[in-house]
Amino acid sequence: MSCVLIVGSTALDSIKTPTAENPRLLGGSASHAAVAASFFAPVQLVGIVGEDFPKKYLALYKKHGIALDGLQVKPGKTFHWSGEYEVNMNNRRTLATELGVFETFSPELPQAWRKTPFVLLANIGPDLQHHVLDQMQRPKFVVADTMDLWINIAKPSLLRLLKRVDGFVLNDSEARALVGEDNVHLAIRKLHKLGPRYLIVKLGSHGSILSSPAGRFLCPAYPLAKVVDPTGAGDSFVGGLMGYLARSRGGIDRNLRRAMAHGSVVAAFCCEGFGLNQTTRIKPAQIEARVKEIEELTRF
Amino acid sequence: MSCVLIVGSTALDSIKTPTAENPRLLGGSASHAAVAASFFAPVQLVGIVGEDFPKKYLALYKKHGIALDGLQVKPGKTFHWSGEYEVNMNNRRTLATELGVFETFSPELPQAWRKTPFVLLANIGPDLQHHVLDQMQRPKFVVADTMDLWINIAKPSLLRLLKRVDGFVLNDSEARALVGEDNVHLAIRKLHKLGPRYLIVKLGSHGSILSSPAGRFLCPAYPLAKVVDPTGAGDSFVGGLMGYLARSRGGIDRNLRRAMAHGSVVAAFCCEGFGLNQTTRIKPAQIEARVKEIEELTRF
Repeated sequence: MSCVLIVGSTALDSIKTPTAENPRLLGGSASHAAVAASFFAPVQLVGIVGEDFPKKYLALYKKHGIALDGLQVKPGKTFHWSGEYEVNMNNRRTLATELGVFETFSPELPQAWRKTPFVLLANIGPDLQHHVLDQMQRPKFVVADTMDLWINIAKPSLLRLLKRVDGFVLNDSEARALVGEDNVHLAIRKLHKLGPRYLIVKLGSHGSILSSPAGRFLCPAYPLAKVVDPTGAGDSFVGGLMGYLARSRGGIDRNLRRAMAHGSVVAAFCCEGFGLNQTTRIKPAQIEARVKEIEELTRF
Repeated sequence: MSCVLIVGSTALDSIKTPTAENPRLLGGSASHAAVAASFFAPVQLVGIVGEDFPKKYLALYKKHGIALDGLQVKPGKTFHWSGEYEVNMNNRRTLATELGVFETFSPELPQAWRKTPFVLLANIGPDLQHHVLDQMQRPKFVVADTMDLWINIAKPSLLRLLKRVDGFVLNDSEARALVGEDNVHLAIRKLHKLGPRYLIVKLGSHGSILSSPAGRFLCPAYPLAKVVDPTGAGDSFVGGLMGYLARSRGGIDRNLRRAMAHGSVVAAFCCEGFGLNQTTRIKPAQIEARVKEIEELTRF
């Protein structure tokens, strides 16, 4: 079993839906990805929080065996995002973003973490993702996630990053924005030309598509009749995926499809509660049961 | 091997896309479904055309072994639809609809066809679908398709129809319109309460979902890097599905998943050419090769 190093945002999320309002939940790309990965492998978390960061959230990371040597606690406020979902839970709008200590974040890796084999550059500015990679020594498998914001305001840095990673994960609208191509299969071809040998395009409730040296894979989403809060689902997906890879023997190509299925199932649990409320309650047997279910859902 | 009886529209389609314009192609729900089904089983076509209907299209039906004893040829013009697709091929708008002889259509089944075991009520007004069912004698498996128009203007008749069919096929936006539910899995539960034991919700390029007494199935779409003209893809899907069922030994539940996969592949071929141009060129071995491909695409 290997470790996964995860860098990204560690935040407080205030989330409004048509039926509920939840202030200052534990959130951020790295929080979701780290908890998701923790079900499979030991996790090293790189991030920054302010002095206002609730002790209970630190305890929650620890309960999941997440090493916090790379989590900086700085004077000031924790990154705070607040957003609101529409009735159908598909569209959300940001109500406020307060960067706080995140504005001055410069990820520094503990010496002992620089040889960690699996690295997840969760959603965060590409300059910071570069800065983490600069400190790593020959990692085995590096995957980057991103978001539309970075495609819009930091595209040159993101494009340079894509030449340095093994895998790149993004959703279909981000793929469209990055390569200017509506057809997802054509977009994938163009994305490969930017560097990554492994591409995963997330399609929300329609699952995700892998394009890799070992071929393509259509990974279903676990069917949910009710979505409570989709915030962090994409981060949970890639976190679960990386955790599963770190846990598994054998090469990437041998394990990646099954890793995606596990990530997909953790992402579904994430959607069933606010913030990390549901994810943190998962029992490993529940993950395996749902993986089995989606395996059967696509058999013919 | 059993026969499939198919009733629906038989039309001339004039289709504009950003790159091409194709007047008076063979089209209509029954034409697409019948050609798709013909790769698997003998087809009986019930429809109506005007005296202007090109002889070459009658020859094309015949070339596919489609029996035309139920195709009425009446004085007047053939149903003509013209539409235009946007750049991304996802949105289309109707430029003109000329009903012609279709306005007076009353489907009459040849006596010998009234015992055909597989019946596809392809997209057409629900009153006409009822009229066909009224003439059938204990069919083995009846599937109905529909469109948003009938949900809007003929809902009571459609709801009555749903109590008389085994299976119902519709796309996700139609499901939403019919039961007022955004979540497709919840919509499926509500749709079952309307009657059909077998429900298939089409998700365009994201495939389709089956909900049946034997459980659920997520059927992938065959991945296409280029869509030339999606007109008739849904009709081809359900036509191929019914043809495959009619060809296969054993019960519906045993064959339906694989039938959907075959329908999905024929639908993809349909999208690769204007009208029926590509569909009519398919070789059976090409269908099997693509079914094998999508089978492998979802294995993990």
